[in-house]
Amino acid sequence: MADRGTLTRRGLLVGIGAAGGAGAMYAAMGALGLAPSEQDKTFTPPRQGDFTLKGRGAAKVVILGAGVAGLTVAYELGKAGYDCTLLEASDRIGGRNLTLRGGDRLTELNGAAQDARFGEGVYFNAGPGRIAPWMVTMDYCRELGVPIETFVNSNASAYVHTEGRTVRNKTARADMYGYVAELLAKATHHRALDRRLTGEDRERLLEFLRRFGDLGPKLTYEGSERRGFTRYPGMDGGTALTSPAGLHEVLAAGVGRAITNDFGYDQATPMFQPVGGMDAIVTRLVEAVGRDRVRTGARVTKITDQAGSVTVTWEGGELTADYCVTTLPPHILAKIPHNLGALVTAALRTPVPVAAGKIGLEYGRRWWELEDRIYGGVTETDLDITHIWYPSYGYHSERGLLVGYYNSGEPAELYGALTPEDRRRRALTQGKKIHGEKYRAELLSSVSIAWERQPHLQGGWVRWPAFDSSFTLLQRPSGRVYFAGDWLTHLVAWQAGAMESARSTVTQLHRRVTASA
Amino acid sequence: MADRGTLTRRGLLVGIGAAGGAGAMYAAMGALGLAPSEQDKTFTPPRQGDFTLKGRGAAKVVILGAGVAGLTVAYELGKAGYDCTLLEASDRIGGRNLTLRGGDRLTELNGAAQDARFGEGVYFNAGPGRIAPWMVTMDYCRELGVPIETFVNSNASAYVHTEGRTVRNKTARADMYGYVAELLAKATHHRALDRRLTGEDRERLLEFLRRFGDLGPKLTYEGSERRGFTRYPGMDGGTALTSPAGLHEVLAAGVGRAITNDFGYDQATPMFQPVGGMDAIVTRLVEAVGRDRVRTGARVTKITDQAGSVTVTWEGGELTADYCVTTLPPHILAKIPHNLGALVTAALRTPVPVAAGKIGLEYGRRWWELEDRIYGGVTETDLDITHIWYPSYGYHSERGLLVGYYNSGEPAELYGALTPEDRRRRALTQGKKIHGEKYRAELLSSVSIAWERQPHLQGGWVRWPAFDSSFTLLQRPSGRVYFAGDWLTHLVAWQAGAMESARSTVTQLHRRVTASA
Repeated sequence: MADRGTLTRRGLLVGIGAAGGAGAMYAAMGALGLAPSEQDKTFTPPRQGDFTLKGRGAAKVVILGAGVAGLTVAYELGKAGYDCTLLEASDRIGGRNLTLRGGDRLTELNGAAQDARFGEGVYFNAGPGRIAPWMVTMDYCRELGVPIETFVNSNASAYVHTEGRTVRNKTARADMYGYVAELLAKATHHRALDRRLTGEDRERLLEFLRRFGDLGPKLTYEGSERRGFTRYPGMDGGTALTSPAGLHEVLAAGVGRAITNDFGYDQATPMFQPVGGMDAIVTRLVEAVGRDRVRTGARVTKITDQAGSVTVTWEGGELTADYCVTTLPPHILAKIPHNLGALVTAALRTPVPVAAGKIGLEYGRRWWELEDRIYGGVTETDLDITHIWYPSYGYHSERGLLVGYYNSGEPAELYGALTPEDRRRRALTQGKKIHGEKYRAELLSSVSIAWERQPHLQGGWVRWPAFDSSFTLLQRPSGRVYFAGDWLTHLVAWQAGAMESARSTVTQLHRRVTASA
Repeated sequence: MADRGTLTRRGLLVGIGAAGGAGAMYAAMGALGLAPSEQDKTFTPPRQGDFTLKGRGAAKVVILGAGVAGLTVAYELGKAGYDCTLLEASDRIGGRNLTLRGGDRLTELNGAAQDARFGEGVYFNAGPGRIAPWMVTMDYCRELGVPIETFVNSNASAYVHTEGRTVRNKTARADMYGYVAELLAKATHHRALDRRLTGEDRERLLEFLRRFGDLGPKLTYEGSERRGFTRYPGMDGGTALTSPAGLHEVLAAGVGRAITNDFGYDQATPMFQPVGGMDAIVTRLVEAVGRDRVRTGARVTKITDQAGSVTVTWEGGELTADYCVTTLPPHILAKIPHNLGALVTAALRTPVPVAAGKIGLEYGRRWWELEDRIYGGVTETDLDITHIWYPSYGYHSERGLLVGYYNSGEPAELYGALTPEDRRRRALTQGKKIHGEKYRAELLSSVSIAWERQPHLQGGWVRWPAFDSSFTLLQRPSGRVYFAGDWLTHLVAWQAGAMESARSTVTQLHRRVTASA
């Protein structure tokens, strides 16, 4: 969990239409108190990934937070006939699902404001940026009609910058695999592994190692075309990169994290992104739920669970509903007066908020494509910027936007404490070590975000010391109050977590309503 | 070279507009015999990847073959003022760059004709299908304004089918890497590698192996979440795939080729494709060159090199030009009467045509996305279908098209010898072993191509026994006749080869013209 891929709640407004979809229609029916009708009984979800509730409920539900978790709760409950109202503390909808474009303004808790000056078609996914194919987020994209495209998460041509040295990812990989293969081939030869391997096993292993490491006939690694070329093959065989560094140097370079980055089940190739920006998911969810169901600027000050209802108070209003679903981050919710008891408060205080930051660097020329031949993907570094992301959209267009850092924990706190200008300066100094002077000289504009400084969020995500009884306690309701959010799942920091949690909450709530009906 | 990625010449018509670009304008100027003007001197290529010729030439050039090589020659010569005419034996332009859509008809040498019945938006790249980022093809896409998108060449969720067993690519990889790491860690522990590794090296190597193989605390491989899940993490940690097979079984499965498929410099992640079909490259080249410069249905019967000119005869006509560039496949050209001498004929007979085939299978439902969670990428098999390609476009739309086989050499000859119906039947029988009954039951339509049976081509590409003197002989002109094509490069079977060869030929020809001017 140390090296998370995405962020997932609350933040700034995205452009939102108010046209209702099927979900909005069902929500409206619920709002009008219509009893289950013939039409309801024939309701079927449009696609496989859709979420089905059996029967219909007419209860009134107040949802705290209009991020992806809150919107998903409202969307799914709406389909089953519930009357939902969302209270959102911010002026904007979408939570951490935040895409910044030219003209957008980003304000932080310390008062610093940045104006995005990006050109037409350039966007910056300041929160979540990629989706794994097995995630429920993909199903929502399909169901909501959000077009998706490939997100390049792994790029053999991107760089690895460790210990002050920059090489292509493919070069680092070829060398490391080459030596690993050579060493194991040697050990096999010395019969050190006799007890594990039959003669047949050994032959098969050697055949694999030859291929895996691109070993020479003597089973030694002497470089490989896989490292890349200074001049690629064409009329002649080209000029392959000169011979590899020695084993000692290759091991000392510490490229392990970089070259195994796509091994994890959540980072494996390929990954995906909505066309035009991650906030397309929010836009379509809000369209389906109905914009008029979201009350923005409503900062909750009190939650009171009663015998037959819940009352939520905010600055300037109060609302009593049959149920409440709160999707606020646990450390924010813990500070709001409630009558849910000490155990709940203690549980809410257990997960630790984690700082996370990103900077979007816009250039007038896609030099990473033109000069470095890097089309999308990630450069991995041992610098405090951690990663540089190249855009997986707008290939060959004029302008383009890199993510100049995406870090969390300590380095994120370090950047977050700086002014936006100092963050940019530092990010450019670091990136320049990899890409040279153009990285600084050709910058057009930038915007940086420190999620721990975002109002009503104060963190990129949370870290649970353990998935213990506090975690499972909050997966269940306290009286008529339910909790939801990525922080209540094993997919912390992923939108899929927010959605999975929303579906779990909706299922529990609906079972209770239909059982008591 | 055994497992090639693309094909590159001659075939069927693509929809071609006749609107001229900058290239067409310069070509027209050359045709009018305009002397270099002020405007010419200030001519600069539109983008970095563009190809620059210094000075201008007004010679007349006849180009044989309107595939990618021929079109690129005409395009580049046109920019420098030459008057080019292309003679194409087929009724269609584009050569092996062939995209089939609903309504297209494909005819083979034995007379069999297939009509593509694909739905709206579905296409089948029957020839080249992917582009590596370092290839000059990318520059031409940029220069010609052909939009590109990611082609998923490697997919951890796709399958590996070997020895009758089907597993996910990520599962095969996790197990193989796990055991390799364990074995090497063990050997390191036994000090079998003492002479190679210092103590520090050993520590670093073990740290890498732990990460690389996801080894347990005792440096053994006991399975890994990287293998995948039967139920992915969400509200709980999910259910990871059960423990791996033993070392012996994993080695016996022979998954080496499949899991190292993206290691080569020409197959590394990411790769790219033109949006909407590969033939967008042909369409834009023809627009730039001018459709009226291409004479289709012109099968060349004789090439005569004279003292000051070249005469090309075809069925129904004859044309005398200052120079000729032939881009015909060597085995086709070798059969055409010419006066270029015995050495040229012998050289043309040296490369061996290779059979290559593909089948496009259209389904009414993208079950590979919905059920298998495979979005793009390739399933590798040891069956005669070799690969199954999943589409890297149209995600989440209704219909979709798989490439049900892409093979070359013997298996391609086997499929090519069958009727289209029998090819489909066989491809379905094989694919069903991986995907089950739906693979057969849900098929909507199909089209298959056997490149060795395509008129005027008679092969997918060629294999040079060695890049010897025959190869280099044909890289130079014979009198006033130049040769071009992917077959004259180290990028055989790639469009980039056709383009590189075209640029080399154009450079040589232009040097000669400007030197003699």
